[in-house]
Amino acid sequence: MLGVCYYPEHWSELLWAQDAKEMTELGIVYVRIGEFCWSRIEPTENQYTFQWLDRAIDTLAKAGLKIIMCTPTATPPKWLIEKYPDILPVDIYTGQVRAFGSRRHYDFSSKNYTKEAMRITEVLTKRYGTNKSVVGWQTDNEIGCHDTTHSGSSNAKNAFQVWCTAKYHTIENLNTLWGNVFWSMEYQDFKQIELPMLAVTETNPAHQLAYRRFSSDLVISFHNKMVNIIKNNTVDQFVTHNFIPMSDTQTDNFLLASNLDFVSYDNYPLGRSDLFFSTLTAKEFKPYMRTGHPDFSSYSFDQVRGLLDKNFWIMEQQPGPVNWAHHNPRPEKGMVRLWTWQAFAHGANCVSYFRWRQVAFAQEQMHSGIKRVDNSKSIAWNEIQQVRQEIDKLLIIDEYINIRVAIVTGTLNQWITEIERQGDSYNHQKVEFTYYSVLRQLGLEVDFISVNSDLTKYDLIIAPCLPIIPDSFITKCKKTKAHLVFGPRSGSKTDEFSLSPNLAPGPLQTLLPIQILSIETIRPDCSETLSYNNKLFESKCWREELSISKEVIVVAHYHDKSPAIIRHKNISYLSTLTCSSFLLAFFENLCCELDIEILKLPKDMRITKRNNIAFVFNYAGYEQQFPVSEIGKFLIGNETLGPYDVAILKLNK
Amino acid sequence: MLGVCYYPEHWSELLWAQDAKEMTELGIVYVRIGEFCWSRIEPTENQYTFQWLDRAIDTLAKAGLKIIMCTPTATPPKWLIEKYPDILPVDIYTGQVRAFGSRRHYDFSSKNYTKEAMRITEVLTKRYGTNKSVVGWQTDNEIGCHDTTHSGSSNAKNAFQVWCTAKYHTIENLNTLWGNVFWSMEYQDFKQIELPMLAVTETNPAHQLAYRRFSSDLVISFHNKMVNIIKNNTVDQFVTHNFIPMSDTQTDNFLLASNLDFVSYDNYPLGRSDLFFSTLTAKEFKPYMRTGHPDFSSYSFDQVRGLLDKNFWIMEQQPGPVNWAHHNPRPEKGMVRLWTWQAFAHGANCVSYFRWRQVAFAQEQMHSGIKRVDNSKSIAWNEIQQVRQEIDKLLIIDEYINIRVAIVTGTLNQWITEIERQGDSYNHQKVEFTYYSVLRQLGLEVDFISVNSDLTKYDLIIAPCLPIIPDSFITKCKKTKAHLVFGPRSGSKTDEFSLSPNLAPGPLQTLLPIQILSIETIRPDCSETLSYNNKLFESKCWREELSISKEVIVVAHYHDKSPAIIRHKNISYLSTLTCSSFLLAFFENLCCELDIEILKLPKDMRITKRNNIAFVFNYAGYEQQFPVSEIGKFLIGNETLGPYDVAILKLNK
Amino acid sequence: MLGVCYYPEHWSELLWAQDAKEMTELGIVYVRIGEFCWSRIEPTENQYTFQWLDRAIDTLAKAGLKIIMCTPTATPPKWLIEKYPDILPVDIYTGQVRAFGSRRHYDFSSKNYTKEAMRITEVLTKRYGTNKSVVGWQTDNEIGCHDTTHSGSSNAKNAFQVWCTAKYHTIENLNTLWGNVFWSMEYQDFKQIELPMLAVTETNPAHQLAYRRFSSDLVISFHNKMVNIIKNNTVDQFVTHNFIPMSDTQTDNFLLASNLDFVSYDNYPLGRSDLFFSTLTAKEFKPYMRTGHPDFSSYSFDQVRGLLDKNFWIMEQQPGPVNWAHHNPRPEKGMVRLWTWQAFAHGANCVSYFRWRQVAFAQEQMHSGIKRVDNSKSIAWNEIQQVRQEIDKLLIIDEYINIRVAIVTGTLNQWITEIERQGDSYNHQKVEFTYYSVLRQLGLEVDFISVNSDLTKYDLIIAPCLPIIPDSFITKCKKTKAHLVFGPRSGSKTDEFSLSPNLAPGPLQTLLPIQILSIETIRPDCSETLSYNNKLFESKCWREELSISKEVIVVAHYHDKSPAIIRHKNISYLSTLTCSSFLLAFFENLCCELDIEILKLPKDMRITKRNNIAFVFNYAGYEQQFPVSEIGKFLIGNETLGPYDVAILKLNK
Repeated sequence: MLGVCYYPEHWSELLWAQDAKEMTELGIVYVRIGEFCWSRIEPTENQYTFQWLDRAIDTLAKAGLKIIMCTPTATPPKWLIEKYPDILPVDIYTGQVRAFGSRRHYDFSSKNYTKEAMRITEVLTKRYGTNKSVVGWQTDNEIGCHDTTHSGSSNAKNAFQVWCTAKYHTIENLNTLWGNVFWSMEYQDFKQIELPMLAVTETNPAHQLAYRRFSSDLVISFHNKMVNIIKNNTVDQFVTHNFIPMSDTQTDNFLLASNLDFVSYDNYPLGRSDLFFSTLTAKEFKPYMRTGHPDFSSYSFDQVRGLLDKNFWIMEQQPGPVNWAHHNPRPEKGMVRLWTWQAFAHGANCVSYFRWRQVAFAQEQMHSGIKRVDNSKSIAWNEIQQVRQEIDKLLIIDEYINIRVAIVTGTLNQWITEIERQGDSYNHQKVEFTYYSVLRQLGLEVDFISVNSDLTKYDLIIAPCLPIIPDSFITKCKKTKAHLVFGPRSGSKTDEFSLSPNLAPGPLQTLLPIQILSIETIRPDCSETLSYNNKLFESKCWREELSISKEVIVVAHYHDKSPAIIRHKNISYLSTLTCSSFLLAFFENLCCELDIEILKLPKDMRITKRNNIAFVFNYAGYEQQFPVSEIGKFLIGNETLGPYDVAILKLNK
Repeated sequence: MLGVCYYPEHWSELLWAQDAKEMTELGIVYVRIGEFCWSRIEPTENQYTFQWLDRAIDTLAKAGLKIIMCTPTATPPKWLIEKYPDILPVDIYTGQVRAFGSRRHYDFSSKNYTKEAMRITEVLTKRYGTNKSVVGWQTDNEIGCHDTTHSGSSNAKNAFQVWCTAKYHTIENLNTLWGNVFWSMEYQDFKQIELPMLAVTETNPAHQLAYRRFSSDLVISFHNKMVNIIKNNTVDQFVTHNFIPMSDTQTDNFLLASNLDFVSYDNYPLGRSDLFFSTLTAKEFKPYMRTGHPDFSSYSFDQVRGLLDKNFWIMEQQPGPVNWAHHNPRPEKGMVRLWTWQAFAHGANCVSYFRWRQVAFAQEQMHSGIKRVDNSKSIAWNEIQQVRQEIDKLLIIDEYINIRVAIVTGTLNQWITEIERQGDSYNHQKVEFTYYSVLRQLGLEVDFISVNSDLTKYDLIIAPCLPIIPDSFITKCKKTKAHLVFGPRSGSKTDEFSLSPNLAPGPLQTLLPIQILSIETIRPDCSETLSYNNKLFESKCWREELSISKEVIVVAHYHDKSPAIIRHKNISYLSTLTCSSFLLAFFENLCCELDIEILKLPKDMRITKRNNIAFVFNYAGYEQQFPVSEIGKFLIGNETLGPYDVAILKLNK
Repeated sequence: MLGVCYYPEHWSELLWAQDAKEMTELGIVYVRIGEFCWSRIEPTENQYTFQWLDRAIDTLAKAGLKIIMCTPTATPPKWLIEKYPDILPVDIYTGQVRAFGSRRHYDFSSKNYTKEAMRITEVLTKRYGTNKSVVGWQTDNEIGCHDTTHSGSSNAKNAFQVWCTAKYHTIENLNTLWGNVFWSMEYQDFKQIELPMLAVTETNPAHQLAYRRFSSDLVISFHNKMVNIIKNNTVDQFVTHNFIPMSDTQTDNFLLASNLDFVSYDNYPLGRSDLFFSTLTAKEFKPYMRTGHPDFSSYSFDQVRGLLDKNFWIMEQQPGPVNWAHHNPRPEKGMVRLWTWQAFAHGANCVSYFRWRQVAFAQEQMHSGIKRVDNSKSIAWNEIQQVRQEIDKLLIIDEYINIRVAIVTGTLNQWITEIERQGDSYNHQKVEFTYYSVLRQLGLEVDFISVNSDLTKYDLIIAPCLPIIPDSFITKCKKTKAHLVFGPRSGSKTDEFSLSPNLAPGPLQTLLPIQILSIETIRPDCSETLSYNNKLFESKCWREELSISKEVIVVAHYHDKSPAIIRHKNISYLSTLTCSSFLLAFFENLCCELDIEILKLPKDMRITKRNNIAFVFNYAGYEQQFPVSEIGKFLIGNETLGPYDVAILKLNK
C-alpha cells in the first residue's frame, strides 16, 4: 500500500478536498496527519480547537482515505514551555539549556512534560480513538532525533539517582560494579551521583553506560505510557512509531518497539548517505550520490523488520531532494520507484511519502514533496503512479520465510564502542554495514536479530560486534547447529562494562578455545596484510592477538604469521577489522560449505527474494542483464534492466 | 592623497614633532588619530583629559597635516563596563557573556552603551568640531568586526520583540508570515519571542532573517545617532567610517553608509587572502601569497565605491606583514605601491596606511608599520615615497564615467545563503567574486549596485545571487535595454523567507518564461559537465532543474542534456554554479554581442580605466609586456612591466 | 633498578602476597602505591582507614620490595567536593565548572583545596614518614595533565589580582608594562583585572603571559608546600614527582622540579607518538607506529635529566598498548626492553612499569599491564625479565660526563609561541624536537639546559627558540667559547612580552651585529628554497628578513638571495625554520669544525654513550650492523642487531 504525510494546518482549508481527491487518484490509501499540530489543537492551555481537525479528517475520509493520527508531542507549544520551563532539555556537552524555536525541545526526565504529553495524548485519543476514519496512530515523531535522548538537567540527574538506587540497591554495590575505587570516585550515597558530563577528563565507562541505559529506559517509559494511553482509548486502531536509523536513537530499539503493533521507518536514502558516507572520496561517492549505496536502504529495512520480526511501514519516504544534509542531490529518475519496491521487497506493508506538497515556509521549505509548492506535480508523481499500477500485478506474501542468515545487532554494542573508543576509526555502524553489504552482494537475505532472538531458524549467524554476551545467548549458541561468526571485541566485556575476567572472548570461551591476549588499534591509513587462501587482504584499525588451542584452525594470518581469523567447529572468530573483498571471499566459501545458495550478480545489481517472488534492482546508471532469468517468470520488467530499473519475477519452485 | 594612522597616546610626546615632520616629508597629508583612546581622554567617569590630545593635534597641524578624528567607541574603558555590565555582548553560539580585555566588547542593544557612546561623541565633537586642523571624523572602528553585530543578551531579546511588534503589528501576522505553524512554533504574544539561538535544531529561517535585519537596524540606528551628533557639532568636517569587507559586517552596508560623506575601507590584501583563499591548494595559493589575487583588492574597492556610488578612502592600507591571519607573509617588493595605485585607479581619493610605526606592545605588536619599532624606515617607506612622487605626474579625475557593467549585490542575499545552506559548499562571497574576477580578466570595469540603484547607465547587469527580488527592481528590469544575467537562486524567496509561490525565479517570471522545478546541491568534488558551444565545462555545487517555454533559447546543457543556462530576449539565466573558464567564455561572447569592448591581457595583468587614464598592474613575479600600448601615452612606466609593477597611460581619445 | 606501579586497593587482599612474590621474582625492587586512594584512606571526613594500607605495605615489604608512597591529591573524593565546591576548576575556554567524575578536578587557586591537600599529606607523612619500608614519595600525579594548570574561577581571578599587585606594585606600572593603552584596556585598580578569557577577540599577550606565569607560580607554590610537608615529616625518604611531557605541564618545569630529590617521568612512547606525530602521512608514521620515533623517548629522557641536571626515574613505563591515544598500537616485540635500556642509557636510575596488572574496570581498563587481567603474564614480562638479567652484566655510572652539546629550553619560550601564533604552523615542541633528532642522528649526546644553567661545559649550545633572553644569559654567552646557534624569534621579546626596542634579536645584538627587519610566516605547504653549500634545502613556515653588518658571514640564502642563515664569530643565527636534511648538513659541518666527534649510523640505529659504556639501539624492524664495533667490547649483544634490538659495549678508552 501507499501513503502520504499531510499537514492540513499548513494549507488553506479550500485546498483539502482537491488534495484528497488527487491523493486517491495517485493511489494513496493512507494519510498521516497531526504530527506537529499542538499549537493548533490547543492554542492556549486547555482551550481545544479540534474543529478544524475534525473537518480535515472528514474531508480526507470522504475521499476514501484512511487516517493515521499522530501525537503532537515532539513540538510542545510556547505557552507550555513558559508554564513549565523544565521541559527544555540541557545539552550534555555544554550544560546549556536547549531553547525553544525548533522541535524535540523536551526533556524525557521532566515529569511536567510527561504529564502534559500524556494529557494531550489522552485528549486526542479520547476524541479520535473510535473514529472509523482513523485507522492508526503514530507516537510522537522520530524519537531521539537531534540528540535528544540525553539531557543534562537536574531532573535528569535526580531521575538517574533514583534509577541507580533501583538497579544497584546499595551504593557499595554500585561502587564495586563500576570500579569507582579506580580514581577515588566512590560515592557514599546515591544522592551524590552526578551525570557523566563536563568532567575534567573521561568519566567511568560503567557510569556512562549506566547513564545511557537510564536514558534509554526513560525514553521507553515515556513512550510506553503513550502507547498504553492510545491502546486504552482506541478501538481497532494500530499504534506505530516512525524510527530514525537505529544507530541514531541512542535507545534500545528492540525495547522501544516492543509494545507497538508494527514498526515504521523514515527512509531518506540520499540525505542519510551524504552523512554516512561523507568520508568517501568523490570517486567512491559519486556513483551513488543520487541513488544511495545499493545496500544502504535495505540495511535499514532489514533492521527495522527485525525489531519485531515482522513487516513494517515506511512512514516517510524521500520523494526528491531534502533540505538537511550537507549536500542534497535529487534522486535519479526511477529511484523513487526503485526505493519503494525495495522497501516492499524487504518487508514493507506500506510506503508513505513525505510529504504531499512542498511547503513554502519555515525550516523545511527546501524539502521536496510529491507536489511542488505551486501545486504542480513533481517528478515523483509519475514514479509513484507507476508503482501503484505495478502493485496490482503481484501478490505480496506478508512474511519472509526461509531467511537463513542473521546478523546479531543491538544498541548496547554500539554504546560500548562509542564510550570506549580505543581506536578512533572504529565505527560500529560502518562495521555492521560492511558485513551486511557483503552478504547482500552474495545475494543473501539477512535478518537482524537481538541476543534475545530465537536462533533455530538460521544456518549462519554473524555477530560483527558483541562485546557483552549474555549467558542466555551462549546457551542458544551451544544448541545451534548454525555456523556462528564473531567479530573482534566479542565477549570482551561484562554487563557492567568491565573486562571479562577470563579475557575476551569471555563467556564465548566455553565454545571457543581461544583467548585475546592483547588488543591494538592502528590508524586507518596504516593497514597491514591479512593472508587468506594464499591471497593478501587487509587487516585494519582493530587487531587482536590470539592465543588458540591446538584444535583450532587458523583461517587467515596477520602480516607476522600470527592467527587473525580462526575456526573451531561451527564457530569462526575474526579478530580484526578487514576489507570488503576479504569478507566477500570468506563468506562465499563459508556459504558454499554450509550449502547456503549464493548468487553473485553484476555490480550494483541486487536481488531480494520474498517467498516465491524475486525482486531485482539495478542501481547502476546503465542497462544491465539479469543473468539467471531462468529462475522464474517475469511479472514486471524483464532480464534487461534499464538504469535504476526494477524487475520482479515469480520464482519457479 | 596619502594618509596614515597614528596613535599619539602610544608614544612619548617627545616623538610627536619628529613623527609629524617625517610624515610630511613622506608626502602624508592626512593623519587619523584618537581611534581607541577613550581611557586616555576620560580615565575615570566625567574626568576629561583632553590636554594631551590638544597638544597632539597642534603638533601634527603645525607640520601641515590634516587630522581625522575618531570616536573611541570601539573600546569602552573598564570603569564604564563596571558601571554598566550590560554593555558586554552575549555570544549567540554559547550564551556566554563576551568579556572585557580586547575590543568591540559592546552590545548594540544596550541602551546604557548607546547613551554613553553618544555622550563621548558629543563631548569630543563639541571640543574638536570647529577645530580647523580637524578635517573629518571616523565613526567607531570596523563595525561588525569579530562577529559583534549580533548579541544574545536579554537586552537584545527585548529590543527584538519591540522591533517585531513594530514590523508585524499583530502576533498573528508574524506567525503567518514566518510560517510558525510548521512545528507548533506559534506565539501568542510578542513577549514570547526568543532569539533564534541555542535551539535543539535549526530555527525558522524567517525568524533568523528577522533577527539579522533587526541586528542590522540596531547597528545602523546606533551609527546614525553618532553620525548625526558629529554633523550637528561640526563645521566643514566630513564623516566617514572604515568598513571591513562587505560580507563580514552582517549589516546592510548600503544603509550603514547612507549618512556618511564618503565610505572608507580597511584594505589588508594578504591577511584577508589567507582567510578567504584558505581552501586553495598550495599550487593555487602560492603564486599570490605575497600579492593577493589580482582581483581581490579591487573587488573590495569596487564594492565600497558602490555603497554611495562615489569615491572612497582607504583608511587603513597594509604596509607589510600583519598579525592576525593564520599565516602572515610579507608583501612582495612593489606591492605596497601597486595596491596604492590600484586603490586610486578604482576610485580612492586617499590611501592612508596603517600604521605609522609598528608598536612594541599589546595585541598588534607583530603588525608592521611604515616605520619599524626602532623608528627605522620599513620597506614600505620607499614605495610610498615613490607613489607620492608619481601622484604629481597625473591628474586623477574624481569620478568614474562610462562603466557599462554592474553586479547587483546586497547583504540580504548573503543572509539568505548563510541561513539556508542547502549545499554546504555554496559561499555567497566566493560566487560573487568569481563573477567579478572573470569580468576583470576581460578588462571590464565593474560597478557594484543594489536593487535600489539606477540601472539606466549599464549595458550589462549581473545578479549572481538574488533570492529576494523586490517589485521595484522588476519594474526597472522591464524598462532597461541592458542585458541582464541572473545566477541560480534568483527570485526564489519572498521578502519573509518563504518560497516564491509560483516557484523560482518568482517575480522574474514576468520577464522570463521559465520555472525552477527542483534544486539539488552536490558535493564540490562531484562536479558534472556543462556543455556550451560544443565545449565541456563544469556544473558544480548547485543545480536547478528548469522548465522553459518554447521561445527560450538553451545556451548550455547539463550532462543529461537538460537546459542549464538559458536566454530569453535580454535576459540570461544560469541555473548552476560553474567554473571560471565557462564564465570567461560566456561573458566574452556576451560582451561581443553587446558591443562592450573587452581586453584580454596576459595572465595576472590587469587594466583599470578611469576616464581618460588607464592603469596597468602586473601581479606576476616576472616581467610582462602590456600588449596594446598604442591605446595611449605612458605617464608612468612603459609597456614593459617589471614584477609587481604599475604603468599609467593617458588614453588617446 | 626496576619498579612497578601497584594499586592494592584495586585487588582482593588475597592476591597481595602472591603479587609481591612475583614482583620480586621478576626482579622488581620498587613498588609505587597509594596514588589515587584518598576515598579508601579517608572514606568520610576525618575518618581514616589506614589499616588496609598498613597491611599492603607490610605484605610488599615482607617480600623485599621498597615502597614509594604517593599523596592522593590528584583525586579528591566526592564528600570533599561537596564540602568545598570551589575545589572544582573552571574551564577557561567555556567558563563552565569542570565536574567531578574523573581525576585532577581541583583548582590550584582554591585555598580550601590547598588546605585539604596539605592536611592529607600531613596525615599520610606523619603515618609513613618513618616507615622503613617506605623509601620515598611521589607528589600528586602528573601535574598539569588534562589542561589543569589553568582555571577560570573567581578564586583564580582574585589570586591573579593579588599576584599582579605583588609583581607590578602600582596599576600604572602594570598598564605601562602591558601596554594597556593600546585598546583602552587600562585599569584603575588591581581589583579590575580580569582573567584573559572569553573576550571578544584576542586579549593582550602580556596579560596572557602574566596569567600563565601566575598559574605556574600557583602550581609550584602548591607543590612546594607539599614537598615541604613531606620533607618535614619523613626520614631518609626521597621526594619526586612524575612529570608528563615538558610541553604539557604549562608550568615552569625547572622550578617545579627544584625542590625534588630527583625528577620522575611517565614514558608512553606509543600513546604520545600517536598525538605528537598525528599530522604525519601514513608513509612517515607507519614505520614507527609500534616503536615511536627513535629520538622521541630519549627527547623526554634528556629533557627530564636536564631539570635538575641529574639522573631521574621513569615512574611509569608503557608495557603494552595504552587506552588514551586516538589509536593504540601494541609495541613491537622487544620494544619494552629497548625503551627500558634507552632510559637507563639516558640517565634513568630506575624504570618502573605502569602497571603491575591490567585492571578490569573503570577508565583505564584497556591499558595493558605486565600481567593481564586474568593474572597471566603479558608479553612484557619476558622482556622485563631479560632486562633484569642484563642489568647485572654491567655497572652503570651514575652521571653523564663530557656531554658537549646543549639545547636551551624552557616553558617561557613555549608560552610566547603559544600566545603569539603569528604563523599557525609554528609548533615550539616540534621545532625543538627537530633540532634534537638531528643531533641524535649525528650520534651526539645532548643536554637540555635553561637560561640559568652553567654554559662552561659545552662546546655547542643551541637555542632553537628563545624569544626572551635575560641579560644574565647574554653575559654567559659573552664568556663562552662554545659555538652558539640561535633559531628564529631569538631575542625578539622583552620580559613583559613587548618587542625588543632595538628590533630582534634584541640583547643578542651586543654579540651579533644583525637586525631582524621584518618577519613573515607562510603556509607550511608553501615552502621555498634555502641554498647552502650549493645545495637546495627548504625554508618554511617562519622567515625573517635580516640586516647584517659587513663582517657577518652568510651561510645560507633564501630563494631571493637574501641572507637566511648567518655566522659571526662563534654565533650562528638561523632566521627561518627549515628541514631536517638541512640541519643534518649544517650541524655535521659545524661539529667537524668544532672538533665534536659525530657518528652517523644506519637509519633508525642510535648510539648513546654514558661515560665508558655505549648503548646501541636498533629501532628498525630488520637486522642492522653496528658499523664501528671496534670502539669497544660488547657486554650485551654484538655488532649484528636484530629488529628492535639493543647492544651494549664497554668503550676502549
